[in-house]
Amino acid sequence: MLLYANSESGHSYKARSFLLLANVAHEYRWIDLNTPRSERPAEFVAVAKFGEVPVLVDDGRALCQSNAILIYLAQKFGVLRGEPSEWQSVLEWLSWETNRIGFSVPNLRFSLRWDKQPADVLSYLRGRAMVDLRTLDAFLSSSDYLLKSGPSIADISCSAYLFWLSQAGIAEAEFPNVQRWLSSLSKLRGWLHPDDALAKPAQR
Amino acid sequence: MLLYANSESGHSYKARSFLLLANVAHEYRWIDLNTPRSERPAEFVAVAKFGEVPVLVDDGRALCQSNAILIYLAQKFGVLRGEPSEWQSVLEWLSWETNRIGFSVPNLRFSLRWDKQPADVLSYLRGRAMVDLRTLDAFLSSSDYLLKSGPSIADISCSAYLFWLSQAGIAEAEFPNVQRWLSSLSKLRGWLHPDDALAKPAQR
Repeated sequence: MLLYANSESGHSYKARSFLLLANVAHEYRWIDLNTPRSERPAEFVAVAKFGEVPVLVDDGRALCQSNAILIYLAQKFGVLRGEPSEWQSVLEWLSWETNRIGFSVPNLRFSLRWDKQPADVLSYLRGRAMVDLRTLDAFLSSSDYLLKSGPSIADISCSAYLFWLSQAGIAEAEFPNVQRWLSSLSKLRGWLHPDDALAKPAQR
Repeated sequence: MLLYANSESGHSYKARSFLLLANVAHEYRWIDLNTPRSERPAEFVAVAKFGEVPVLVDDGRALCQSNAILIYLAQKFGVLRGEPSEWQSVLEWLSWETNRIGFSVPNLRFSLRWDKQPADVLSYLRGRAMVDLRTLDAFLSSSDYLLKSGPSIADISCSAYLFWLSQAGIAEAEFPNVQRWLSSLSKLRGWLHPDDALAKPAQR
């Protein structure tokens, strides 16, 4: 199993984090996103349907879109997927993440760090991020994880960019239930912070 | 089967459109989103996990998040889901929609019609919408539908808000492959435009 990813991509981190938490043997290939698309490694361009990381190659098949990869991995390995009765809830959280906190927080962070945007755009993105964090914090006020049964790909997905929340200019401490949840996730066996999980491997 | 939805919600339209295209008997209950959340019908508030439409109630279970509902329906009825070998591609398109064209186009439309935003925010959203439409148009230059095998929930999802593209200030004709694809979808048996599919039912 081969994962193409990049150090600054929380979407990449979701797939990498699953593989680390589930202790799945795999190779991590770092893709330089500062290189124009046309100059990226041909082996990557050939498999990246949307031209984006992450891409997971398994049994000769290339899979993209981080949450679609999480669904594939959870079903293939039968772990981190909750109880069968919770599967629809997993799908709901993955959809919510993709349209909400997996849009607002990464784009706010991206706009602050790399793709400078006007103040009104930053304010718009920050407003959305705060709403999304409040939704998550309210849910986690009565539940340790997003599923009752324990950690799952719903948590991996919704938490991915939140380990970089300060880089989006937001203090974790404003959302105490989110903070407690992130702390619990970081204690799982195999867990690595995205800065470590996604670090560029040493040159061979 | 009971669907709570609203006339202006393309996310609602996805679920309604599946039920119409697959000819599934159901009741459509229109929810007034101009009513404060606390004053919406108690039966709706009780089942709406994220406080949003659509919500589908089936066999006493409440399902939310439009793309999660599409996955549920396609698997339950065994239609509009493509070939088994295409299932991962369905999940990829649903993820892409949720983070891309199902964010940019609806939020641009919403900002132009109801939630006035500063010019820089409109420009940001419009820029994203155009990138997403170009991605879709490029893909559809070599394929009639998003799956090779024909119409599926991937098309229902990715096209939902595009039947209102002019309301987002974008001309369909700028994206000829998208335009041809929307025309093909509109000829499917059972298809209704969102204005008709989501119209408030006459008072009983």
